[in-house]
Amino acid sequence: MRSVSIIGAGITKFGEHWERSFRELVVEAGIKALQDAGIEGKQIQALYGGCMASGMFIGQEHIGALIADQLGLNPIPSTRVEAACASGGVALRNAYLAVASGAYDIVAVGGVEKMTEVSTTIATQALGGAGDEETELFFGATFPALYALMARRHMEEYGTTEDQLAMVSVKNHKNACLNPYAQFQKEISVEDVLNSGYVASPLKLLDCSPITDGAAALILCETNLARKICERPVEVVASAQASDSLALANRKSLTELRATKIAAREIYEKTGLKPKDISFAEVHDCFTIAEILAIEDLGFFEKGYGGKATEKGLTALNSEISINPSGGLKGKGHPVGATGVAQAVEAYLQLRGAAGKRQVKDASFGLTHNVGGSGATVVIHVFKAIEGKR
Amino acid sequence: MRSVSIIGAGITKFGEHWERSFRELVVEAGIKALQDAGIEGKQIQALYGGCMASGMFIGQEHIGALIADQLGLNPIPSTRVEAACASGGVALRNAYLAVASGAYDIVAVGGVEKMTEVSTTIATQALGGAGDEETELFFGATFPALYALMARRHMEEYGTTEDQLAMVSVKNHKNACLNPYAQFQKEISVEDVLNSGYVASPLKLLDCSPITDGAAALILCETNLARKICERPVEVVASAQASDSLALANRKSLTELRATKIAAREIYEKTGLKPKDISFAEVHDCFTIAEILAIEDLGFFEKGYGGKATEKGLTALNSEISINPSGGLKGKGHPVGATGVAQAVEAYLQLRGAAGKRQVKDASFGLTHNVGGSGATVVIHVFKAIEGKR
Repeated sequence: MRSVSIIGAGITKFGEHWERSFRELVVEAGIKALQDAGIEGKQIQALYGGCMASGMFIGQEHIGALIADQLGLNPIPSTRVEAACASGGVALRNAYLAVASGAYDIVAVGGVEKMTEVSTTIATQALGGAGDEETELFFGATFPALYALMARRHMEEYGTTEDQLAMVSVKNHKNACLNPYAQFQKEISVEDVLNSGYVASPLKLLDCSPITDGAAALILCETNLARKICERPVEVVASAQASDSLALANRKSLTELRATKIAAREIYEKTGLKPKDISFAEVHDCFTIAEILAIEDLGFFEKGYGGKATEKGLTALNSEISINPSGGLKGKGHPVGATGVAQAVEAYLQLRGAAGKRQVKDASFGLTHNVGGSGATVVIHVFKAIEGKR
Repeated sequence: MRSVSIIGAGITKFGEHWERSFRELVVEAGIKALQDAGIEGKQIQALYGGCMASGMFIGQEHIGALIADQLGLNPIPSTRVEAACASGGVALRNAYLAVASGAYDIVAVGGVEKMTEVSTTIATQALGGAGDEETELFFGATFPALYALMARRHMEEYGTTEDQLAMVSVKNHKNACLNPYAQFQKEISVEDVLNSGYVASPLKLLDCSPITDGAAALILCETNLARKICERPVEVVASAQASDSLALANRKSLTELRATKIAAREIYEKTGLKPKDISFAEVHDCFTIAEILAIEDLGFFEKGYGGKATEKGLTALNSEISINPSGGLKGKGHPVGATGVAQAVEAYLQLRGAAGKRQVKDASFGLTHNVGGSGATVVIHVFKAIEGKR
């Protein structure tokens, strides 16, 4: 398999885009990525797009063709990938495999979701389709409820507190204030979180990532070619994906995501890296408890120590390991199909030293961790910057 | 890129499965494919699933994880691909690329759709999401209407008749009678079609493929390995995919699918094959006019001659070229996400001489042609049988 690198990235502001359509978001992110790469559309040989539930959100399927059409990139092959909230990460992985295979040299990856065109009821139903519709959503177990079960069990087993959960949110809002693309540009306090009202106990409103519109895009290129056309490519050092049962009830443990552990093990084995070699990670904090599970399952902290590590500030920007420097899903926003791609956009910016006020110092390896549903799909990528043309 | 072959296939009966769930269909096709390949589930390294609109049809997304879960194949990576009615073909292509890349040696591909759980209104809306929701479906242009425009223009330009359209349906029903997995096991006459009532003039009910439940699955394997474990592998000789505008109004011609022509050209260039080298083709006859466009755009007949060729019987089983020996979408049924995989299942059976009463004699190369929407995605594969273990 050939080495693959990112040579360009684009992202829209994440938020409630009442005045802009799904298509406009796609075009903005795509054009920005092309401009950043300094290449023309006709150099792109294939497209991959991550999108979770456009059928439910905007009545439109066939998103691959739509993206190619909107970007004027017909007739190149364009493929939509869906893996619930990991759609973007899995799209990135398939684009990576397509370049690694030798099928293409330059491929664009997009992620997009327009979630605000429907009522909260429909949005909840659409998102519920990420879990087990038959045994969870049908009986009223929406996503906050599933993660609330995990949070409750983690509190019971490891003494994690509601304050510690809140601190994840506080940190991510703080980072988001430094990210011009983030949905929330407002610092919050632990008290704000604790007083924000239960959605599904112990999770409160400010423990939950928001409903968001947004799009993100990347240009991938075979690495030898990337070195010729780009000053500072960001290599995809490794990619791994794993699955778990759709329903929470079929898992052995509520306090870990098995798919994260399996994909992480594969990443570390493939690269020879250890968790301490990772400078920063964009992890899937759809709920605050999800970040705590992630930093444990990725090996950054021991199982059960995620809450305490957060409380001690070990996950803050430029601390022991910078977790979610972008603001994460909680602060930056979570347009479900776009999130996995947006995480990689952040990794690309950080590793090129282009992350502005939220820059992680001396960043060497960056990791992205994207989760579908309550953990039934997990996809992890590791990146590093490499030398390009002078 | 490495060579890739099919070593096993499975398919459910296509039809109205009132008593069976989406999940049961997935399991049946998957297990049959594994049994046919003579391998165990644990030998599968990744899964790809094609599904168009499960969110709208059954309230469930995250179909990749669902398939892995239902087949007991966690924690391997599992990816759902959506490209409207070409979802199955594009899933096959991505699975093919994943094996060709060297990322995996053995991969399973599934296609599935359960369309009968919703009202016809919802089904029409879901399927309309394959076209341009903003400029077509929103204004009432459902799928039969779009293909009716193409049919009318083809009649105007080339003198194609409603009788000739009907003959496509008559032929495909005849072939379907020889296929135990087909939805319709009933021969029909040209008169039956002409008297079946207009859906969108000139297309009548029996010019249209039906609403169908069904699933199909394939096991792909790197070819050197395939030769060791399978007596008669079927090699994927070439794969090509192309895109066109989502909306019909943005196309230069209504009497051809540009994406078919582009993908076909790529297939012929890659393989050195000519249309006359193809023994049979499973083409995307979602409407009778679609088969006529396909056999012209694939180069089997001159542009404008598709209707006459059908009338002369040149596309019948074991004539000049056997078109849709399985019965096609019209006769076999069209569970949209499954269709592209089912086409490849038919190619596999035919090339191994295992197609029973519908066997194409002396079949050398078989082609599958899968269309998304009104032609915005087209994916074509060519297959041939090769020597395996003795």
